[in-house]
Amino acid sequence: MADEVKLYAVGGSPFVFRVELALNLKGINYKIVEEDLKNKSSDLLNYNPVRKEVPVLVHNGNPISESLVIVEYIDDVWKGFPILPQDPYEKSVVRFWAKFIESTCIPAIFKVFGSNGAEQVIAEACEQLQIIEDELRVKGKKFFGGDNINLIDIAASFIAYWLGMLEEGTEIKFVTKDKFPKITEWADNFIKVEVVKKLLPPRIIPPKAQLLAVFKQRFGNS
Amino acid sequence: MADEVKLYAVGGSPFVFRVELALNLKGINYKIVEEDLKNKSSDLLNYNPVRKEVPVLVHNGNPISESLVIVEYIDDVWKGFPILPQDPYEKSVVRFWAKFIESTCIPAIFKVFGSNGAEQVIAEACEQLQIIEDELRVKGKKFFGGDNINLIDIAASFIAYWLGMLEEGTEIKFVTKDKFPKITEWADNFIKVEVVKKLLPPRIIPPKAQLLAVFKQRFGNS
Repeated sequence: MADEVKLYAVGGSPFVFRVELALNLKGINYKIVEEDLKNKSSDLLNYNPVRKEVPVLVHNGNPISESLVIVEYIDDVWKGFPILPQDPYEKSVVRFWAKFIESTCIPAIFKVFGSNGAEQVIAEACEQLQIIEDELRVKGKKFFGGDNINLIDIAASFIAYWLGMLEEGTEIKFVTKDKFPKITEWADNFIKVEVVKKLLPPRIIPPKAQLLAVFKQRFGNS
Repeated sequence: MADEVKLYAVGGSPFVFRVELALNLKGINYKIVEEDLKNKSSDLLNYNPVRKEVPVLVHNGNPISESLVIVEYIDDVWKGFPILPQDPYEKSVVRFWAKFIESTCIPAIFKVFGSNGAEQVIAEACEQLQIIEDELRVKGKKFFGGDNINLIDIAASFIAYWLGMLEEGTEIKFVTKDKFPKITEWADNFIKVEVVKKLLPPRIIPPKAQLLAVFKQRFGNS
């Protein structure tokens, strides 16, 4: 039986992008089911009753939610381009960094926009980003994964591309080349990767007031 | 070569407990290295420079941090009692729930104490706990893992034991048997498991003012 792979998605989402990138790295055929977040389909609500969010991957009828959980699933099921290392120790190191980016760095960045660029909140985000900067420096490779991208690069793709759009739209620029040369270099390398370039959404910069309102509502109190 | 397994730990921590439980389920011999969080050892800071926190597992010289990452590592390396299912789909479901408990439920609970039991914050935590309650009801088994505990039960162990101590100490009781009969039943089953019982720290209830101060400082603004 041919695999049936459907991805419930919205255009432009960095979390959907993680899953699409993994699918494309593996060379998997899939069908996109576009969702309207203002009017979610009953399929989406059935498949992801807990989060009610995209992305959801449905593989031969089985739904999987949470972008990084989906990426690990894809790596478990389809061989070919390895997204996590085989060695258990190396794998744990990759999971540690992916979790750090997911649970600490990205929320710290969201809070910057949620606070309309409050100095203290920017300082806290920069402190977390500095840890990534140092890791890239120590590693001295093109990607977190070395010569090829891995789960950490996939987890961090928001930082490579979406962050710049948010900085431009909100006029809150804090991840500069001067301050974070290694992150900037990594981001440049990442968005040049053929499969990444092909999948990145167009650069669309929403109006400042709209961006700040959205982030304030979701991350302004935290 | 015999495995050398060291666990950097502090007594009473629910996050250290997760790792100890996994080690004991697998029957692994390990040495506890007790840390003083007010005066962290240089070993701990070297092994976990990003988080500077316990638990850290050091296996044959290789340090691993983040309790659930460590538990997955233990399951990868040592066979015997399976903590995650082998099947990739079942594994992704288990990871989804463990992540939900780790990243959504437990922070929501911490915020209750951080807000000194603010009504709205309690309502938000209960909304998340209701999702777990429903999942246990639908599943209809003794544990999240079915007849045996798995990664989800391990992730949720804070809810089974530590939460009650915090409720008692702070006099903020919101996870009642009436409201959450399935969670209560699960918690009773969980703390009765022989290996769990053996590892649980003594019930120590710090004074209310001290508890509230600690949580307010760490979770009061979020």
